[in-house]
Amino acid sequence: MSLTPEQQDEIKALRVQSAPTLRAVSPGLEAILYEPMPVLDHGFVRVVDYMGDDAAIVQAARVSYGRGTRKVSDDKGLIRYLMRHFHSTPFEMCEIKYHVKLPVFVARQWIRHRTANVNEYSARYSVLDKEFYIPAPDQLAAQSSNNRQGRGDVLTGDEAAQILDLLKHDAEKTYRDYAWMLNEGEDGVAVDPERSGLARELARINLTLNTYTQWYWKTDLHNLMNFLKLRADSHAQYEIRVYADAMIQTLDAWVPYAAEAFREYRLGAVQLSATALTVVKRMLAGEAVEAGQSGLSKREWNELMVLIGRSG
Amino acid sequence: MSLTPEQQDEIKALRVQSAPTLRAVSPGLEAILYEPMPVLDHGFVRVVDYMGDDAAIVQAARVSYGRGTRKVSDDKGLIRYLMRHFHSTPFEMCEIKYHVKLPVFVARQWIRHRTANVNEYSARYSVLDKEFYIPAPDQLAAQSSNNRQGRGDVLTGDEAAQILDLLKHDAEKTYRDYAWMLNEGEDGVAVDPERSGLARELARINLTLNTYTQWYWKTDLHNLMNFLKLRADSHAQYEIRVYADAMIQTLDAWVPYAAEAFREYRLGAVQLSATALTVVKRMLAGEAVEAGQSGLSKREWNELMVLIGRSG
Amino acid sequence: MSLTPEQQDEIKALRVQSAPTLRAVSPGLEAILYEPMPVLDHGFVRVVDYMGDDAAIVQAARVSYGRGTRKVSDDKGLIRYLMRHFHSTPFEMCEIKYHVKLPVFVARQWIRHRTANVNEYSARYSVLDKEFYIPAPDQLAAQSSNNRQGRGDVLTGDEAAQILDLLKHDAEKTYRDYAWMLNEGEDGVAVDPERSGLARELARINLTLNTYTQWYWKTDLHNLMNFLKLRADSHAQYEIRVYADAMIQTLDAWVPYAAEAFREYRLGAVQLSATALTVVKRMLAGEAVEAGQSGLSKREWNELMVLIGRSG
Amino acid sequence: MSLTPEQQDEIKALRVQSAPTLRAVSPGLEAILYEPMPVLDHGFVRVVDYMGDDAAIVQAARVSYGRGTRKVSDDKGLIRYLMRHFHSTPFEMCEIKYHVKLPVFVARQWIRHRTANVNEYSARYSVLDKEFYIPAPDQLAAQSSNNRQGRGDVLTGDEAAQILDLLKHDAEKTYRDYAWMLNEGEDGVAVDPERSGLARELARINLTLNTYTQWYWKTDLHNLMNFLKLRADSHAQYEIRVYADAMIQTLDAWVPYAAEAFREYRLGAVQLSATALTVVKRMLAGEAVEAGQSGLSKREWNELMVLIGRSG
Repeated sequence: MSLTPEQQDEIKALRVQSAPTLRAVSPGLEAILYEPMPVLDHGFVRVVDYMGDDAAIVQAARVSYGRGTRKVSDDKGLIRYLMRHFHSTPFEMCEIKYHVKLPVFVARQWIRHRTANVNEYSARYSVLDKEFYIPAPDQLAAQSSNNRQGRGDVLTGDEAAQILDLLKHDAEKTYRDYAWMLNEGEDGVAVDPERSGLARELARINLTLNTYTQWYWKTDLHNLMNFLKLRADSHAQYEIRVYADAMIQTLDAWVPYAAEAFREYRLGAVQLSATALTVVKRMLAGEAVEAGQSGLSKREWNELMVLIGRSG
Repeated sequence: MSLTPEQQDEIKALRVQSAPTLRAVSPGLEAILYEPMPVLDHGFVRVVDYMGDDAAIVQAARVSYGRGTRKVSDDKGLIRYLMRHFHSTPFEMCEIKYHVKLPVFVARQWIRHRTANVNEYSARYSVLDKEFYIPAPDQLAAQSSNNRQGRGDVLTGDEAAQILDLLKHDAEKTYRDYAWMLNEGEDGVAVDPERSGLARELARINLTLNTYTQWYWKTDLHNLMNFLKLRADSHAQYEIRVYADAMIQTLDAWVPYAAEAFREYRLGAVQLSATALTVVKRMLAGEAVEAGQSGLSKREWNELMVLIGRSG
Repeated sequence: MSLTPEQQDEIKALRVQSAPTLRAVSPGLEAILYEPMPVLDHGFVRVVDYMGDDAAIVQAARVSYGRGTRKVSDDKGLIRYLMRHFHSTPFEMCEIKYHVKLPVFVARQWIRHRTANVNEYSARYSVLDKEFYIPAPDQLAAQSSNNRQGRGDVLTGDEAAQILDLLKHDAEKTYRDYAWMLNEGEDGVAVDPERSGLARELARINLTLNTYTQWYWKTDLHNLMNFLKLRADSHAQYEIRVYADAMIQTLDAWVPYAAEAFREYRLGAVQLSATALTVVKRMLAGEAVEAGQSGLSKREWNELMVLIGRSG
Repeated sequence: MSLTPEQQDEIKALRVQSAPTLRAVSPGLEAILYEPMPVLDHGFVRVVDYMGDDAAIVQAARVSYGRGTRKVSDDKGLIRYLMRHFHSTPFEMCEIKYHVKLPVFVARQWIRHRTANVNEYSARYSVLDKEFYIPAPDQLAAQSSNNRQGRGDVLTGDEAAQILDLLKHDAEKTYRDYAWMLNEGEDGVAVDPERSGLARELARINLTLNTYTQWYWKTDLHNLMNFLKLRADSHAQYEIRVYADAMIQTLDAWVPYAAEAFREYRLGAVQLSATALTVVKRMLAGEAVEAGQSGLSKREWNELMVLIGRSG
């Protein structure tokens, strides 16, 4: 993780600047506010602001359902009820803002989640730092043989070494040429006074997709959980999954009841199709259902068997 | 304004429950947090939570533009610059949550702003209170003769009296029948044990559009300003404009720099069409432009003359 | 269903105005285009435009996955695969526009789906027709005793008759007063020349929530299915469910493969929570799991038993 | 522009497959449907589907304003009125879908417009073609001296030649290494049977930001115009502006009235701040206003002078 000394000083300063507020306060998030959690080789994710807590979800639900919610015994139970029945609006009442440092190719996947606010570092305005993502050796894997978008066995030996070497060399070479084309010194003075230098918005096109960028990313709790459900999933690319994993820790710190319900009714939950449900019911009734008579495709049958623990 | 005693007690309790936070704090909003501002005869608007302040806008801009923003001398200048050039994402970094009590017909206009989160009181779950909006005498106006959707002269005398009487009488009658159909006593016991009572989700359809509802409404600063620009405009219906006016006060308290820039570059700003700009340039060059030679329609010409102070 | 003679003529005219296009054409939708499907006592829903078909979903998926999709044997299989794995963006490539006539209280539920475009009839500009929803006798039900927002037994006898009478009488009375306050004749001339008449934007507040309004509502296929999943559900209020049911017929006509997959993986599918999945696995392994040892709340246990066909 | 022979054949086939439809048809768009318009060195933009036309905008407005719109004499006038008064919902009733081939760094700017549907070619699933953007010599410019994000003078001579050479060389080198790491032959068989090859989702991180990608991009007319207003602006980066310019041609072909109104009230229109308006009024009243007494900052004063044709 690469924070500049200025950024580290700024974090320290913010961590001691406590002020009183009448708003809801989440003790768990206050404890880690501003602190970067390292992700990948140079990235991080940190919470820089938030609004609301578990009680805010409950409060919103109670304004909706009025006296109707009085019977539900407690906040935790109500939050589980809301999550279980896919009531989304009470969760939208909480908001969180992250500062994330991430490779460009990860940013390109991340930005597909449209219900969020983003301010990204602009390479039209400013010069990017010389930082790029190089996979750790245990992440350098071959194409999966049975999944068009996944990874298979980890590469080893010469091939792994050559690939790591190429990735490093190419990133360094393209960055060096980027800097040369810019011809910008520290103080804005040309490095080589004989050359004009290329506009920043053009020079950046020479950088590779593993170059690090950074942004502020803000969303509400409902959309955050949608993001985490998709990106913490085992089918997500490893390099974005590690960000999602770190953010689930911030979810635990922020809204512990909602986080627990999220694991029960989203992360750990499964869907059965109409036909799969019929199969399960027949099995539970004692019938020895076979693939051919299930009404499921072979692939769906296999997935269902894995799901209910009947494979191999 | 009608707050229940429980709500008033809750507000008092929240107003003394101060806790330390490391987050950005807006002193202006803390001073009015939770306090309802009366609007119309029974409505109110109050801020119940917020995230960010003027500095958060600046911080987001600086992450975007990096070293590029160093030259702008101060926060106030940068915020004005961002507003002037329609940079919207830094303003999206601030979030605010309101609790609003408002008539149903106002809620129907309000909800058309889709970029917001809403939790409304549900009349499927709970019984609505007997509260409806009756215009003040100085708001009881005839249809405008030159604006299809506006108001003209204030009504007076018998007609005004009769209308007020009808509005009150009809709202009371339909509410009384609503309550009768529900047949629900205070404690959930039937008022008339001989009757089953009608389901809440059906009984409510008998209420008039001036019945009060309430909701939590949460949005970001950028979208809040879009809402205020449209709804504080003189063409907006009076009954929603008064809510927008109250909310502009909360904007002033929350983000004073942004609020000032909003007045300068949004509320008080005007647009000139391509042709109108040509007309203004010709006039400034000393030409005596006439309507017929302006290239503008008669209506646009008249509007331009009003705008530049040349009408009658 | 109440279409004016002008509207009926317009539909007839549009139904014969065929023109050649190079775009994808859905034969199923062409067959019903513009034709209103009656819903409730005066409402309707009709498709007035659309874009794309099953092939457009496939085309979008293939641009995303490139050569990766070649192996999937056919369009139908690919669409099922996309639906099953919650790939939403290919479904967003199809768009549909409806013209809907519906009571205001239904419109208020409907509008909560924000990812859609809406143009509603404005009662600020124009006078509303005298049409309001009165439930059919078999829909006049008491409050459910075990569901805060549902209906229970159908009302009968005197109570039913009295309620229907009240609903009709109140709607007619408030409409009559609305018309009186407006004081507008057919040709815009005052009915009573002695009175100014009340502005339309104010007079309308006297109408009841069962008054009919109408709108154009446009959304993409992915968001349409989200809407239908929620609103065709048995927990949705009957008066919006009948619109969803009618719209599912348009889905069948438009994109038959996607519609079939929608039934299999959305409408008829169920979710098992992490704990419920464990219970099902234990049962399938032959264990006699009991409620107390299941880890589920009593309510969730009961729901699961119903789901898997083991309830009493 | 690089279309594969298969794509060219597909376009030819689609261009002759006419079918009758009852929907609104735009003759202008039918004439160019599917046909790619070349942009940059290898990119293109082409319309692949659409919904609605000028009449659809009018139809939506008339459902909103009912009898209120009868007075407006014609469709063209009503569309201008709607555009002038920032009525956005009628324009949302039209939808368009583009197929775009564009460099990754352009895609990164483009995707910031969130109100659109996107299906992008996935380099996790498939191998990217060897195509990258190299600026034409007249676009190879130095950093602007007075605009942090703009371009200044065009580079010439040795520096230009060296830069072009670097850009080409680096893109080719990184692509060659990408292909080597993939180790994938035409038919999916390994090029070098001794090596496993790197997973596609990892190998792609070695590519430079000028690599071409492609996507389907679908949006409504209102949001399309927002996009075009920002991206056809002289402050937009040249490489995205050329796409916006091409798309404005499709706007002209699709909805000629809306396109004309767009030029008059959006593209060619200007905003005056509250203070700038005061300055203009004073000038028109004959006062010799000077910068110091204007209430405007020096920068805003200069911009205003340019706007009204009074600069130097």
